[in-house]
Amino acid sequence: MGVTVSLVLNIERGQTQSTLQNQLYVQIRESILSGTFRHEMPLPSSRRLAEDLGISRNTVVLAYERLFDEGYLQTQAGVGTFVTKSLPERCITVDVPPNKARERIAPVVLKRPRLAFRGQRLQFAEKGAGRPSIDFWYGSSNRRHFPLKAWRKLLVDNLSRTSTNLSDYGSPAGNLELRQALAERLGATRGIRAAADQVIITAGAQEGMNLISRLLIEPGVRVAVEDPCYGGAARAFESYGAAIVPIPVDNEGIDIAALEIEPAVLAYVTPSHQFPTGVTLSLERRQRLLKWATTEGAYIVEDDYDSDFRYDGPPLMALAGLDRSDCVIYLGTFSKSIGAGLRLGFLVVPEHLVDSIVAIKSLMNYGHPWLDQIVVAEFIKSGGYERHIRGIRRLYRDARDALLSALKRHFGEQYISGKYSGMHLMWSLPPSLAPANKFAETALAHDVGVYPIDAVGAVDFGGVWKANGIVLGYSSLSANQIEVGIKRLADAYSGRTSRRRAR
Amino acid sequence: MGVTVSLVLNIERGQTQSTLQNQLYVQIRESILSGTFRHEMPLPSSRRLAEDLGISRNTVVLAYERLFDEGYLQTQAGVGTFVTKSLPERCITVDVPPNKARERIAPVVLKRPRLAFRGQRLQFAEKGAGRPSIDFWYGSSNRRHFPLKAWRKLLVDNLSRTSTNLSDYGSPAGNLELRQALAERLGATRGIRAAADQVIITAGAQEGMNLISRLLIEPGVRVAVEDPCYGGAARAFESYGAAIVPIPVDNEGIDIAALEIEPAVLAYVTPSHQFPTGVTLSLERRQRLLKWATTEGAYIVEDDYDSDFRYDGPPLMALAGLDRSDCVIYLGTFSKSIGAGLRLGFLVVPEHLVDSIVAIKSLMNYGHPWLDQIVVAEFIKSGGYERHIRGIRRLYRDARDALLSALKRHFGEQYISGKYSGMHLMWSLPPSLAPANKFAETALAHDVGVYPIDAVGAVDFGGVWKANGIVLGYSSLSANQIEVGIKRLADAYSGRTSRRRAR
Repeated sequence: MGVTVSLVLNIERGQTQSTLQNQLYVQIRESILSGTFRHEMPLPSSRRLAEDLGISRNTVVLAYERLFDEGYLQTQAGVGTFVTKSLPERCITVDVPPNKARERIAPVVLKRPRLAFRGQRLQFAEKGAGRPSIDFWYGSSNRRHFPLKAWRKLLVDNLSRTSTNLSDYGSPAGNLELRQALAERLGATRGIRAAADQVIITAGAQEGMNLISRLLIEPGVRVAVEDPCYGGAARAFESYGAAIVPIPVDNEGIDIAALEIEPAVLAYVTPSHQFPTGVTLSLERRQRLLKWATTEGAYIVEDDYDSDFRYDGPPLMALAGLDRSDCVIYLGTFSKSIGAGLRLGFLVVPEHLVDSIVAIKSLMNYGHPWLDQIVVAEFIKSGGYERHIRGIRRLYRDARDALLSALKRHFGEQYISGKYSGMHLMWSLPPSLAPANKFAETALAHDVGVYPIDAVGAVDFGGVWKANGIVLGYSSLSANQIEVGIKRLADAYSGRTSRRRAR
Repeated sequence: MGVTVSLVLNIERGQTQSTLQNQLYVQIRESILSGTFRHEMPLPSSRRLAEDLGISRNTVVLAYERLFDEGYLQTQAGVGTFVTKSLPERCITVDVPPNKARERIAPVVLKRPRLAFRGQRLQFAEKGAGRPSIDFWYGSSNRRHFPLKAWRKLLVDNLSRTSTNLSDYGSPAGNLELRQALAERLGATRGIRAAADQVIITAGAQEGMNLISRLLIEPGVRVAVEDPCYGGAARAFESYGAAIVPIPVDNEGIDIAALEIEPAVLAYVTPSHQFPTGVTLSLERRQRLLKWATTEGAYIVEDDYDSDFRYDGPPLMALAGLDRSDCVIYLGTFSKSIGAGLRLGFLVVPEHLVDSIVAIKSLMNYGHPWLDQIVVAEFIKSGGYERHIRGIRRLYRDARDALLSALKRHFGEQYISGKYSGMHLMWSLPPSLAPANKFAETALAHDVGVYPIDAVGAVDFGGVWKANGIVLGYSSLSANQIEVGIKRLADAYSGRTSRRRAR
């Protein structure tokens, strides 16, 4: 038995086998982690240890097996069982006090569990100091257009309503009045036939992505996304372990032929106004996408984030309105139409998924704050929301027109996508102005913010659009600011102004 | 080749191997699902199919392997490869139109992805019709005590504040003013030394459980919970695949000796007022629990849901205040102190976890609605919150006193736990009144709501407390209602009233 370490174990008998096995596991692990039991020492055989301790061999085998599984032990063929040379990563060595005398003592090992989370933080821009004076940032609502007066009245009127109040839990699916108002509005504006119970209130579209992810994504599940794709979607799916399958976008939207040969459980699309290119998915492709989902046995997530703002011609019917196979999950948000600070959005899910989504929402946070839901419901029902939308749609359209004409005036004919709707368009820079990141740097040096697509949180998997795509958001700028901003860019590129002066 | 089916495949060459493989996979799967390719038909060998199609054998092998993995194919030793007899569960047969003529056509197979979610819905009681007239429901705030006047003023005052508004995204971690106010308050009231950036605003404590789950839980990770345990915690951890390890609770709280032999990555505890038994974790056990976590390399989740309501003696210092190894994650909520309809809570996390938790929160919903956060921050900073707490603490203490004296008057000396704090206590029924579920039924027949512990959403793994534990919430009842309710119960058991009259 020469080289075999003598394990000092203190096993309390008279317990169940499972408990004995745990004691054994814990104590051996302790000896390993404290350094008493080191790599060069072979373990006693399970038979021998069982005899020594007077317990069943099976108990020892199971304890050893667990230590193997967790990476504490390893086998060397023909020699025996040893402590793993480099211990599992959950054992993190922390700093030892800078005391020379202690150097020869084993370092203090403060164990930490391994983190399960493997995601990337989302980072949306926060307004404030440090932003350029003329900022074509994407997707900001114009603060001056927040419906402040109506909001104040609705807040005060509804705060003390006796039927509902802030003291109690409501339904995790959301306030029924709001769900009904949304179901009606979506029928009228987007052609979606949904009952109120299919509408689930969420903390913005972002939470909707999480509800869908928890419903459908296990590690390795294939999720098709547009390439380039909205980062809030791709990063959320990835964080649940999805295998992301990027499908190229061209000027008719996502390339369905490419999707058809890529099996997936889920396809995430922005058909109304693709993010960030702004292209609209053609009707023919919408129908083919629905057919793909039906044949493939997949779901489509339709993110309709800015469909309230269409300036030229009627909006195409939502995929959820065309869907006859209950395969579309529709994502909506008030972040664009009212304000992102509300954190209010919604899902419309096929009837057969309602119970599961509500269960997930109940576990996730048991529903959205009550007061904002009631205020928005009343805002919609009173007609105030439609008036608000019409008003800002006019303003945004004027801003878009100003942007298009400023671009034409200062840069001539340019390749612009996504100009028919939304709060931003995309400018594909000509070779004389590209690359996009250099262009954005030059703009910033002249106190103008313009953004390559990755700067607005889009993920360009194939790298096709990133090189020369510039996103220009216009919703929080006046016509005058837009003219000044675009002129500064033109001046910068014709050398007619010095950087110093512009700053 | 007699019995081998002739696969009609349409492979487009001139593509990458991966794409060919996908085409093959998709088309074979289609043939299986449409019924053209049935169980009794053996597949051609990979070698033969590769030759027939003029593609590499490896491409065929990989496509077959995927079909095996997903359950479409199976091997019969010595015979060959076949379509699986019963297809995978993701292929769901839907109803065929009731047309007799179509009966012989293969049923329409509408495939659906397998759901990843494996959780149970949480169900909190919603007030309203159908509840008994005297309802000892657990944890409801008293609506009449909602700080309506202060709230209205704070909402209106802060709605149009220029520094912050509802139009934009804020920090996903929450409003800094609120985080600062909470950090200060927790230092003063719970002995927790935390910087504002360690405080993360959440949608109630329930969302906090999800942030922690996403941080630490992968399928199979061991999570120790109190037995009995708050269902909102156990169900959330389970839904992420945790292996729940129930640790018995006795009258000093969770049994640390039992925990010490059960390795776990996380221990979830309610030390101030154990849910549902109401017992307080003794100081000696608090210290031993912290030692366990440090030795084990585990985290402790301290859910301090109703610690603002302590009636007798000073509260014990929070575990997060005693923690010297950065192993405690503290969960707080405004659901009890202001109202559950706010859906507002917070986490206090060790510094080394802040970035990960904020990343998860950014992906989950990018933060909490702005206005409520500001209102609560101002409410705390103005001193209004402390006054509010003091006021309702007095009312709840009076209600508790009324309940204790009514129980004594009508039932004599009883075994009551959890009476020193909170909004509920637990009555362990004597054999003459038990079992608890029968007692609750009798109470309901007399229009009084009392609740066995599973009815308030506690999970009793060992079944020890369920049999005779009755939870009595008193926070939304007047002294008079309490007296009437307890008297009805006593009358029911002494036969002095008929059920009919009481209804």
